[in-house]
Amino acid sequence: MDRIRMHRYTIGMKREQDTDREILARQAWEIWDDKAKPQLSLGRLEQIAVDIVCMRGELHPKLGRPAMLLFAADHGIVEEKVSSSPQEITWQQCTNFACGGGAIALLCRLNGIDLTVIDVGVAHEFPAHVPIVSRKVRNGTRNFAKEPAMTGQELASAMDSGVRMVRHVHEEGRAVVAFGEMGIGNTTSSSAVMACLTGISVERCTGRGAGLSADALAHKKRVIADAISLHGNPDTPEHVLRIFGGYEMAAITGGMLEAARRRMVILVDGFIASTAALVAIGIDQRCKDHMLFCHESDEGGHRILMEHLHVRPILSLSMRLGEGTGAAVGWTIIRQAMALYEDMTSFDAARVTNSVALLKEQGVSFHA
Amino acid sequence: MDRIRMHRYTIGMKREQDTDREILARQAWEIWDDKAKPQLSLGRLEQIAVDIVCMRGELHPKLGRPAMLLFAADHGIVEEKVSSSPQEITWQQCTNFACGGGAIALLCRLNGIDLTVIDVGVAHEFPAHVPIVSRKVRNGTRNFAKEPAMTGQELASAMDSGVRMVRHVHEEGRAVVAFGEMGIGNTTSSSAVMACLTGISVERCTGRGAGLSADALAHKKRVIADAISLHGNPDTPEHVLRIFGGYEMAAITGGMLEAARRRMVILVDGFIASTAALVAIGIDQRCKDHMLFCHESDEGGHRILMEHLHVRPILSLSMRLGEGTGAAVGWTIIRQAMALYEDMTSFDAARVTNSVALLKEQGVSFHA
Repeated sequence: MDRIRMHRYTIGMKREQDTDREILARQAWEIWDDKAKPQLSLGRLEQIAVDIVCMRGELHPKLGRPAMLLFAADHGIVEEKVSSSPQEITWQQCTNFACGGGAIALLCRLNGIDLTVIDVGVAHEFPAHVPIVSRKVRNGTRNFAKEPAMTGQELASAMDSGVRMVRHVHEEGRAVVAFGEMGIGNTTSSSAVMACLTGISVERCTGRGAGLSADALAHKKRVIADAISLHGNPDTPEHVLRIFGGYEMAAITGGMLEAARRRMVILVDGFIASTAALVAIGIDQRCKDHMLFCHESDEGGHRILMEHLHVRPILSLSMRLGEGTGAAVGWTIIRQAMALYEDMTSFDAARVTNSVALLKEQGVSFHA
Repeated sequence: MDRIRMHRYTIGMKREQDTDREILARQAWEIWDDKAKPQLSLGRLEQIAVDIVCMRGELHPKLGRPAMLLFAADHGIVEEKVSSSPQEITWQQCTNFACGGGAIALLCRLNGIDLTVIDVGVAHEFPAHVPIVSRKVRNGTRNFAKEPAMTGQELASAMDSGVRMVRHVHEEGRAVVAFGEMGIGNTTSSSAVMACLTGISVERCTGRGAGLSADALAHKKRVIADAISLHGNPDTPEHVLRIFGGYEMAAITGGMLEAARRRMVILVDGFIASTAALVAIGIDQRCKDHMLFCHESDEGGHRILMEHLHVRPILSLSMRLGEGTGAAVGWTIIRQAMALYEDMTSFDAARVTNSVALLKEQGVSFHA
């Protein structure tokens, strides 16, 4: 019974024909069940480890240090006054992060994660001494209230940046990749993408971003709804991303697809990263099996998006900062799950009475 | 608005006359608000740090390594077949933990926590080479289905063990103490204590423990309800603890009261530790201000107990192992909250446009 209930949380093992995966999952559960503890008593930590075993395709995956790829870009939609923050915050924060400042750089240092900041479309020329990878597509997207945010070529170029960065960190030997983002205006862009792809109302997909007033929030919703009317109903996830998305979102989408192809573990952050995940899943459903949704953001729309994707994030701490911070904090839980899976003593090693065996002998069912 | 909502989660700052505390909290919030991020966007991490500032009574508390005090004892009530595990698991697991095995020893090692196992009533003589602190009151409590679990003197002795252990770790210079437990039968004991002290039905206070079947759970509930009828309605928290409690629970209660008196930060684990916290709060309401409830356990009754105490635990990972494991995992979140509070760059240091100031000048409200 409990095992079945636990499976509500799984993001792996969805395809019944995937027998290898099932065998591996069963073996991983056997490892858990041999630990000196009541079955399933480590709760979601057990499921996380089993999911990672399935993602990596090996019973004892070595995870090493995750890469945090933080893609940054500006958004033409800020012309419509949908954000409470001035656009220059994007480049200023990128500089800050790249030089070791900000919440994300601190959390990465603290948690053994290697951070790279990638400019895929910031409306600013960074001086050469700032350690930011330049893959700039354009100085910000176009204003999607008036025209599509990107051309097809720009979309391909931004997605390709994500693919290349993931290829690079995979070739370095990494097994885990997290995606962060920075881009004033990107909650507006994400809400529009979410509304188009899920059919959920703009009202429910849209939140306060960095901190809009009630009036400004109402304005933001009108801008999004009007833009969706203007562009009609785009027919593919890529098309939706091209019309309403940002270059950083496109890079993350491309990166997630590539990471899944390479059987990496993908740490999904909050609203922006989850919207990119929605697009990636729309393009290839299988990449969902490689995602760990790290936290439930307080940004309006994120909880609804998690429900839509049938996932329950690991943490719920009312964070709504973005940058990849929720993924960086979530990693600390995942790391503990894997340490317990790999190193916790078994009944046998602990010389603790295996009460399952004992009671089975007595014909008693130990577990519900 | 957001700030007010956040205060639902606070466990500090409850008494309006406590002006020092209020001043300190305001200063701590000012530190957060100067960070290079939208206000309150680190969610509960911000509240945790402010709570700790108030607990310690200083704006920049040094926390150091927490002590995990794991109290263990046996329970006479197991005669009534209320547990799926044999009683010998208690001493076997204590040996395992003390020798570095089990989930709790692993998590403590991983997370920079120093573990001490204290025997306050295990029905076993440990050999001298096993590193367990001996404060044994008796070889297990009496069967509360027939008679009070402890005498008044035994209760005092067990509580005093908790007081002394906390005094010891405080004198070592510690600021943070977590409480773990081991004791086959102690969910039965805790459910009885919870039902008596809260007035909530035995039905809702009682769960499956290590994994009872539906029939065995129904039996456990009957045993508890009958015992409550037998003993009538004890009139004080101490009295309830004496009749239905365990020595490890009494030690934790005493330890929590002492830790609060010493302005320490108390990390509260799952169902057993939270029931001890309920008793401690019943004895002295003020000690609640020193508690961080680390996780919501999957053990039936714990969620209801958290609601009763008006607290929202930091983590909700469906764990139900006890031992202090939820507190050990919760500590990793708390540690990150404090690192961000102390070390995250301010707007000023980051040379990021302080959009709050900027927009205030323009007469715009940056935050909702």
